Amino acid sequence: MNKQILIEVHERVKPYIHRTPVLTSQLLNDISGANLFFKCENFQKMGAFKMRGATNAILSLNDDQRKKGVVTHSSGNFAQALSLAAKGLGVKAYIVMPKNAPQVKKNAVIDYNGEIIESDSTPIAREEMAEKVRMELGATFIHPSNDDQVIYGQGTAAMELLEDHPELDYIFSPVGGGGLIAGTALAAKYFSNKCKVIGGEPKNMDDAYRSLQSGKIESNENGSTTIADGLRTVLGDRNFPIIKENVERIIRVEEDEIVAAMKLIWERMKIIVEPSSAVAFAALLKEKEKFKNKNVGIIISGGNVDLKHLPF
Amino acid sequence: MNKQILIEVHERVKPYIHRTPVLTSQLLNDISGANLFFKCENFQKMGAFKMRGATNAILSLNDDQRKKGVVTHSSGNFAQALSLAAKGLGVKAYIVMPKNAPQVKKNAVIDYNGEIIESDSTPIAREEMAEKVRMELGATFIHPSNDDQVIYGQGTAAMELLEDHPELDYIFSPVGGGGLIAGTALAAKYFSNKCKVIGGEPKNMDDAYRSLQSGKIESNENGSTTIADGLRTVLGDRNFPIIKENVERIIRVEEDEIVAAMKLIWERMKIIVEPSSAVAFAALLKEKEKFKNKNVGIIISGGNVDLKHLPF
Repeated sequence: MNKQILIEVHERVKPYIHRTPVLTSQLLNDISGANLFFKCENFQKMGAFKMRGATNAILSLNDDQRKKGVVTHSSGNFAQALSLAAKGLGVKAYIVMPKNAPQVKKNAVIDYNGEIIESDSTPIAREEMAEKVRMELGATFIHPSNDDQVIYGQGTAAMELLEDHPELDYIFSPVGGGGLIAGTALAAKYFSNKCKVIGGEPKNMDDAYRSLQSGKIESNENGSTTIADGLRTVLGDRNFPIIKENVERIIRVEEDEIVAAMKLIWERMKIIVEPSSAVAFAALLKEKEKFKNKNVGIIISGGNVDLKHLPF
Repeated sequence: MNKQILIEVHERVKPYIHRTPVLTSQLLNDISGANLFFKCENFQKMGAFKMRGATNAILSLNDDQRKKGVVTHSSGNFAQALSLAAKGLGVKAYIVMPKNAPQVKKNAVIDYNGEIIESDSTPIAREEMAEKVRMELGATFIHPSNDDQVIYGQGTAAMELLEDHPELDYIFSPVGGGGLIAGTALAAKYFSNKCKVIGGEPKNMDDAYRSLQSGKIESNENGSTTIADGLRTVLGDRNFPIIKENVERIIRVEEDEIVAAMKLIWERMKIIVEPSSAVAFAALLKEKEKFKNKNVGIIISGGNVDLKHLPF
């Protein structure tokens, strides 16, 4: 794997995604003590960075694979991203979702022409159903975060950020399934000679933090939860090695710190970000004395929130 | 008055304001049928375009006037804008506010170092109190919208928009006190040979619409109100002649149309805009068949909302 792969991936996905703007805020600079550069993937198509990885994964299929479609299990942004990316490329997308998924999430997939296939809600039931679709329909399974092409695709956000701001000392990324932070780490490695990548993770779901400690993929306790619903997933065997080798460290944040960071971004920057997006900024605020006067990029991962249920 | 004045004003205020980004949205283009360019003054300092006019008004004072400070009556964005602009320039700002103004609005002024002077809540009581401050302290009175320097300052938003997008056929601006739309109309006149300016106004407060019909400044009925609280003001003798001569027409919108347009912007563009900002977009949507395939700029005037009281 090398720099050239990311350059090619970026060329390939470019026509299908937005080059999102990088916003700054003097007020948030003052509050944090650092020079912040927010990469606004909440302005990405369908409202999240997931569009990058989904698009690249489909573009990397051959003609025969494209004819048979793609399948994934996700009830969040990746389900929508794969549906929309597939629609734009004339490919069929099968989305395995738990029967009890909220109707609003089902509707979002339907709006983007994804075909929902219901399963029981346990992770194993969802995986089995996706495997069944793969076997019976010949659709290619695309994992939301543990897939090389998805990881490369997600890395294009940080690549653009470093192209716009080569002076960055750090990039903060939220950590959920590991696709975004692994891609970000690759981009930093290939397109900067100094930029370090730091993860922000909810303390309630600190599997990635513990995985870096133990050196093997850890899971979360049954029943643990976080307001950052996009991060309720664990690392995988494709992204963990990249993270282990290239991510400086992970900072864990409490639920109230996530909500406070989210509120700051809404009120001061006037942009809509989902709780998962606020985790990276919350991590910076938590240890802000260590990043004083540094140039810090922050990946705003998405902006899909239910306006009827805000945490503030 | 000519083009040169606006160029000089822009040069003068530039160091003190943000050059706000212009955002686009394929989804909103699809919904409206036009090519939309949103000038995001919600990202302006203190969250609204008012910062431009307030800054220019203070910068146009002489040294003696600056020493004695400025005074205005406003309980909204202009109070905050004048306070913040004055603070940055080392000038004292006296803000006349009704005793019963919400504490959150008072706090916003105090945060920016403005000195609040309480009055009764009628327009006349507020004007009299401002006049008293002017007489007793020698502070220069600056009207929120009916002041030449304020009008020129507000016009710099459309000037930047046309610099970025000279291809615009129309610019839509909300109409409240008339400062923004008058400045916008001057910018379109001087920096485009084809761009027309159209106002969006709440039907409930359609004084500007009626003023254009009758040819003289009209007022609103006692007790009328609108969710677009920034627009609950009437035109003045400085801005009305400019509007009469240079604004193509005004489109009136219902309250539910304002809320629907605001929700579309929040959900689709992922930016926080106040109801007044949504009025211009609502006006376009109302008559969208007339603007099909046109290049349309929309001034997003501000993003100061109370997140605890959203209309959706």
